[in-house]
Amino acid sequence: MTKIDKNTQEIIDSLQNIGTEILKDIDAKKDPELKILTRNLNNVYFDAKDKIIKLGDKSQKRNYFNLNQAKIFMQSLLISKQIKLLLEQDQPTLSIRQLFYTLKHNIPGTSENTFDSQDESDPLIEDVEVMTNKLREELRLIATPKGVISGPMTVQDSSGDILDFTKMGSGGGSIPPLVEDTHFNIKEMNADYILVVEKFAVWNLLNQTKYWQKNNCILMTGKGQPARSERRLLHRFSNEYKIPIYIFTDMDPWGYYIYSVYKQGSINLAYFSHKACAPRSHFLGFSTDDVKRFDMPKSSFIKMDKVDYKRLNEIKNYDWFQSKPWKKELNNMKNLGIKVEQDALVSKSIDFTAKTYLPEKIENNLFVD
Amino acid sequence: MTKIDKNTQEIIDSLQNIGTEILKDIDAKKDPELKILTRNLNNVYFDAKDKIIKLGDKSQKRNYFNLNQAKIFMQSLLISKQIKLLLEQDQPTLSIRQLFYTLKHNIPGTSENTFDSQDESDPLIEDVEVMTNKLREELRLIATPKGVISGPMTVQDSSGDILDFTKMGSGGGSIPPLVEDTHFNIKEMNADYILVVEKFAVWNLLNQTKYWQKNNCILMTGKGQPARSERRLLHRFSNEYKIPIYIFTDMDPWGYYIYSVYKQGSINLAYFSHKACAPRSHFLGFSTDDVKRFDMPKSSFIKMDKVDYKRLNEIKNYDWFQSKPWKKELNNMKNLGIKVEQDALVSKSIDFTAKTYLPEKIENNLFVD
Repeated sequence: MTKIDKNTQEIIDSLQNIGTEILKDIDAKKDPELKILTRNLNNVYFDAKDKIIKLGDKSQKRNYFNLNQAKIFMQSLLISKQIKLLLEQDQPTLSIRQLFYTLKHNIPGTSENTFDSQDESDPLIEDVEVMTNKLREELRLIATPKGVISGPMTVQDSSGDILDFTKMGSGGGSIPPLVEDTHFNIKEMNADYILVVEKFAVWNLLNQTKYWQKNNCILMTGKGQPARSERRLLHRFSNEYKIPIYIFTDMDPWGYYIYSVYKQGSINLAYFSHKACAPRSHFLGFSTDDVKRFDMPKSSFIKMDKVDYKRLNEIKNYDWFQSKPWKKELNNMKNLGIKVEQDALVSKSIDFTAKTYLPEKIENNLFVD
Repeated sequence: MTKIDKNTQEIIDSLQNIGTEILKDIDAKKDPELKILTRNLNNVYFDAKDKIIKLGDKSQKRNYFNLNQAKIFMQSLLISKQIKLLLEQDQPTLSIRQLFYTLKHNIPGTSENTFDSQDESDPLIEDVEVMTNKLREELRLIATPKGVISGPMTVQDSSGDILDFTKMGSGGGSIPPLVEDTHFNIKEMNADYILVVEKFAVWNLLNQTKYWQKNNCILMTGKGQPARSERRLLHRFSNEYKIPIYIFTDMDPWGYYIYSVYKQGSINLAYFSHKACAPRSHFLGFSTDDVKRFDMPKSSFIKMDKVDYKRLNEIKNYDWFQSKPWKKELNNMKNLGIKVEQDALVSKSIDFTAKTYLPEKIENNLFVD
């Protein structure tokens, strides 16, 4: 990556503009000011039309001539400048912790540091994300990825390697930290659908018998709650291809929530959701109707405890769980008083998931949406 | 994998023998009995000669005609039988949770389940591991792997794929759940050394500039505390190749401990250590001497807090940290009162880790052993 791509140039220009505006303020003898979208709960809402958790348009000002804001104002500029430099110099991608270390230094002639802890720099990186309307990943800042993927897809990777995800072995292909088009350029994608599986053990079961080959699909897992990379990649699939996306989790409040994070995003990362969720996703299961439909043995039931009920009630209140089918699903769970893990399908038989459960659900469109 | 390999046949025979012995007891009208090595702290010791944390030879008996043991005795046999069946039928590999679900069922005519929770089955799987003297992985039971790896190695994978770890892209090759020779057959290994890096972000920094190619080494990370797969793979490298192994962590009690888990094993999994540690490993750093040697800026220091001191004192007492260099290292840390993360090296410059720190440490053998 020696040439600066269009998107990166936009970020550099955008950061340059921020600096230019501040210089103008100074020249006009005005108090230099940054305007930043507020990222707290008060400015987060669920857009029912787009089916995405979004950031509203409330913003806050950060001024230089304000004793409470002067330090954070300067820190914001330091971070903006550093991100711009790293992009201009086409430096390797860094984690936000590494970025913090490149900036943390003593201010000469004082006993003050530019930054004392990462708690100070992390929110400011998010500020730069909203100020430029670009993802951290587009700023070339990475988070540790978790997931793996198999299926009919070929990718030209930024390393120069061609990655064929039908030949990634028993471990699957690792999802890299940057799945941006500039770094992870999907050359071929021949899948009929995308299947996201909550747990690695279930992914492993399906991958061993090459479920993705027999069913011509992409099979991926984020190993529980997904990291940023897995969410961003699913967003790309949702956006760039017309094929269906199915999400398969445990039947418990945590499984439902993992589904909703993939589909609608999350409150904490609302500013990230519009580029990291897949609103076309279907909840494949495990659903309360599946308990009877597949005649699950009673021994596979796990009795809900206090913590489960508490989490279930929280989820019932989320705006994005207010569709008729979801209201029914969550009430069913409350009435049944049980959880069922996706792993429990092996209690029917080891190949039940691949040969009976998934085909029956997918062929008959048995989803909760 | 349709043919039963030699190792698997040994396990099947060993489980068959356990059953035969019990039948003999029954025929002789004796109380059927299982003899199992004790896995608690009292039976764990550090073998200073082999440099491995080991299980002693204390064992316990489990009897059928003992009201407190009858249920667990039968559960042990159920698990043994199931593992034997799965191996004989060459079934897909399962997680220990999935194995639990294949066994959990109501006992006809009673209100009793074979197992109620996984807390009951997990320790019994460990019992089977010690009874057969085989790893869970050899019994084809998987744990979720975490790590990634790059470098000059080619592997014939159980999926039929040939994996070339010089062509795994920006995400690296995922370490699969089973790295046994039967599933992960290393065909070529041309590295001069193995470099294990604690954190993914540091691995990512080195992988982007193809450190492993320029230095002809294997570059792997377990993303913090390694899972079983990463430990087992490093053990194989240590055992099957003569090349040096370097472990690079944060300079803090947790980094030191991660090093020791890779090298000597851990107390909790002492029964696993002899097949999952790499006693030839060198601690590359970050070490207290590196602070001055590389003129680290004060801003990269993190002041130790109470929790750090507590953990440091625990580590000082471990038998496997009693070498002269380690006593000195741990005392130095106590006196300095600071921690330094491996990420902090970017505060010198972004390519400092690859171009200065690692070469200088490796060429001059600057290790703590």
